[in-house]
Amino acid sequence: MKNLNFKIIVSFLGLTSMLNGFFMLIAVPFSIYYNEPEKLGILQAGLTTILLGFLLWFFNRKAKKNLGKKEGYIIVTLGWLMLSFTGTLPYVFTGAIPNFTNAFFETISGYSTTGSSILTDIESMPKGILFWRSATHWIGGMGIIVLTVAILPLLGIGGMQLFMAEAPGPSADKMHPRITETAKRLWLIYFSLTFVEFFLLKFAGMTWFDAINHAMATMSTGGFSTKNASMAHYNGMPIIQYIVTAFMFIAGTNFVLTYFALKGKIYKVFKSEEFKYYFFGVIGTTLIITLIIINFQDPNLVTTIDHPKPWGSNESAFRHAAFQVVSVLTTTGFVTADFTMWSSLATMIMFSLFFIGGSAGSTSGGVKIVRHIIIIKNSVLEFKKLLHPNAIIPVRYDGQGIPKNIVFNILSFFVLYMGIFIISSVILSLFGLDFQSAMGAATSSLGNIGPAIGSVSPVDNFNHLSIPAKWMCSFLMLIGRLELFTVLILLTPFFWRKN
Amino acid sequence: MKNLNFKIIVSFLGLTSMLNGFFMLIAVPFSIYYNEPEKLGILQAGLTTILLGFLLWFFNRKAKKNLGKKEGYIIVTLGWLMLSFTGTLPYVFTGAIPNFTNAFFETISGYSTTGSSILTDIESMPKGILFWRSATHWIGGMGIIVLTVAILPLLGIGGMQLFMAEAPGPSADKMHPRITETAKRLWLIYFSLTFVEFFLLKFAGMTWFDAINHAMATMSTGGFSTKNASMAHYNGMPIIQYIVTAFMFIAGTNFVLTYFALKGKIYKVFKSEEFKYYFFGVIGTTLIITLIIINFQDPNLVTTIDHPKPWGSNESAFRHAAFQVVSVLTTTGFVTADFTMWSSLATMIMFSLFFIGGSAGSTSGGVKIVRHIIIIKNSVLEFKKLLHPNAIIPVRYDGQGIPKNIVFNILSFFVLYMGIFIISSVILSLFGLDFQSAMGAATSSLGNIGPAIGSVSPVDNFNHLSIPAKWMCSFLMLIGRLELFTVLILLTPFFWRKN
Repeated sequence: MKNLNFKIIVSFLGLTSMLNGFFMLIAVPFSIYYNEPEKLGILQAGLTTILLGFLLWFFNRKAKKNLGKKEGYIIVTLGWLMLSFTGTLPYVFTGAIPNFTNAFFETISGYSTTGSSILTDIESMPKGILFWRSATHWIGGMGIIVLTVAILPLLGIGGMQLFMAEAPGPSADKMHPRITETAKRLWLIYFSLTFVEFFLLKFAGMTWFDAINHAMATMSTGGFSTKNASMAHYNGMPIIQYIVTAFMFIAGTNFVLTYFALKGKIYKVFKSEEFKYYFFGVIGTTLIITLIIINFQDPNLVTTIDHPKPWGSNESAFRHAAFQVVSVLTTTGFVTADFTMWSSLATMIMFSLFFIGGSAGSTSGGVKIVRHIIIIKNSVLEFKKLLHPNAIIPVRYDGQGIPKNIVFNILSFFVLYMGIFIISSVILSLFGLDFQSAMGAATSSLGNIGPAIGSVSPVDNFNHLSIPAKWMCSFLMLIGRLELFTVLILLTPFFWRKN
Repeated sequence: MKNLNFKIIVSFLGLTSMLNGFFMLIAVPFSIYYNEPEKLGILQAGLTTILLGFLLWFFNRKAKKNLGKKEGYIIVTLGWLMLSFTGTLPYVFTGAIPNFTNAFFETISGYSTTGSSILTDIESMPKGILFWRSATHWIGGMGIIVLTVAILPLLGIGGMQLFMAEAPGPSADKMHPRITETAKRLWLIYFSLTFVEFFLLKFAGMTWFDAINHAMATMSTGGFSTKNASMAHYNGMPIIQYIVTAFMFIAGTNFVLTYFALKGKIYKVFKSEEFKYYFFGVIGTTLIITLIIINFQDPNLVTTIDHPKPWGSNESAFRHAAFQVVSVLTTTGFVTADFTMWSSLATMIMFSLFFIGGSAGSTSGGVKIVRHIIIIKNSVLEFKKLLHPNAIIPVRYDGQGIPKNIVFNILSFFVLYMGIFIISSVILSLFGLDFQSAMGAATSSLGNIGPAIGSVSPVDNFNHLSIPAKWMCSFLMLIGRLELFTVLILLTPFFWRKN
């Protein structure tokens, strides 16, 4: 087809908006239960969003069903923007976040499962609004699952066609033949795990409201907390922090592997190279950070988060190390302690983790572990090729040779990622951030992590950023979440040329 | 051949050592002229180095002449190490730098044309020693020219076979048919330009001793100065700073292009894509930094380098901007002002330049501009390939299609470069550097620049680093100078396996 099918694009955006509106309505009962005046504003926001979505869909419902790649890119990017713009309405209509830039930042931070916040006093917010805030994470996580399973492989982004090959497809060994069925099953896992975590957190001593919010923020690897001190609020309740650590770890695992694990096929999990690196990487890094906390930490230092010296015992040093490592690696962004206080060595190691990310096929962001594996294996091969220039040795992953063009795609993804990191650090400096904070905010936004270093450290928030800096971070969250190419291709002139 | 030809390797090392010893002897007359007691120590160092070299050569002079790739890698890496170890002797024998770690750091910083120094009071050093220090730069620069023209293309490192294709080879348009002839011609240019700069600097008001030292440090893009304040010593003599800026720019240009320019074929220079990006990149960045100095600078700030407020006029703002941009981009590392004082925006922009480097075929270090051009062009192509997965579009550079395997090699080079940067930042943190200084020292050493940011800023030096940190930086200087692969391949187990 020569022309873009705009009607089908708009009808999809309408459906997205309607779905989003229905989720807003779920926040209303919370507001009613806590008898908050904001219930009306949230209701209005929900109905407005549904009406808007209905109109967009209704007038385009008879669109031709042909969907090309170009329409795919536009739908994904505009879909996320549609969610983020309509998602601001509960904040704006209730006056909970009156400034539009702030509301948009908070919303896209939600849908991109980043978890960076402009709120300075979270606990004073209405409960209905806090629920909505957590729900944006959870909706974003649902979106990511369908994106990874069904859309990115078709668009050929960053090798996703390969790592999700296990999921769709006709072979008997595959999870399920049809993509929509796969998505539904993964959603079921996502929903079930959220429910199980909610139950465990409630059982371990959280209020039911906090439990449901933290469960949603964990499974989406988002990181919005209902507490000002994030998970450091529960420094007196280690069991809660261990539960969240475990579920962050699961949320950062390929959901297809989790599916197999739940089916009893544990051997499949440990056959996955990515999982092995993820699993042993977490253990190794946790032990290193634990040792740093115990040995390098100034014992007289008092953290600014709630409890002084939470590393009083070896157990707590291990717990805080594990929590922070898993939180950053899975790009969740919950905090129980300020890792920037654990010596510059710990800061540097943690900051390196910012560039790694979780597993492909999970809700985590960042570069993803599998890409690093392929990049490292390819580098080793480059050395071998220097000695044997004519040998053709493919990169092997999970026992099969990776096509050259996918390795190429992954290398380009990484180079683009680093390039965007450097350029956006410069731009954020222009918008007033100091050296460390600019790099921190850039990498944290791009990797959908949440807290970073400098003036946006785990004990700070993003409220003090200038308006252009907030929009810049919002843009980074969007492109990071959608694997760079999906959004950036829309900014190239040749995308809009007719073939 | 199955076995490595160790005899030929050792005989080459012997020749290298002898050459190095003769250069040491050149420093003796300086010491005699200034009537320094160090003349004896330098003479002893020179004779010892020549004797060592002679013995190594003599006992292996009848080695078989067969040289494979593996021997090539070993000769290049051990050759640089041979220079660096014997090059410490003048410092050690005279007692000018009694500590061996410091002496080695200073020497490898010289041969790698980095210019990072552990000296805290340069002006109190004996003149003979200062000449030797500058000479290590100049010898390093000679080594780089022969490396780029003759050796790296044969070894297939990082696309060098491509960018130097203009230099050797049989076609009529090429510079000269034989590689050794090419190297000799480029050396002649190198020597002549050094002499011209020396003459201009002397004419502009430098002492003849300072002029010869600064000329050697400029043309090798090294950056050792004979003044404590580096080129900021000449803040009252703008013409000197402009001369050095111009010659740094020339030293960062492909010497093959300079050869054509001297032959009157200026059109060839501006036909080179790399030169165009280099030329307009320098102009653009200089203007941006000039504007930042004029507009963002605290007018009451006094720099710690010699002259207060050197940006008093627009001319001086432009001059300092141009000097610092060219100095960092060509990886020379001379300073006339502390760019870290020019707002965090300027710091961030300058720090980004640390990752770019000069032109291939020049004496500059870093990633090199041509690699960035290929990487960016390839990223654009990746976007096009998303829409047209089956189209075969090569990356075009200087009017010709680049083979896929070279693009691959360049991408891998960049990824490896960034990976080493991150890992070495972590290691330097472990060795006691703070966050910014660790990143600064890592990138500056790897890119062979010199001064960096944090505690190794343009007004600081590397003396305060711990011993392991100094060895780490020395290692980074070596691998950065030798284009990573050349050294690192020796650390792989398969290199040492028999075929």
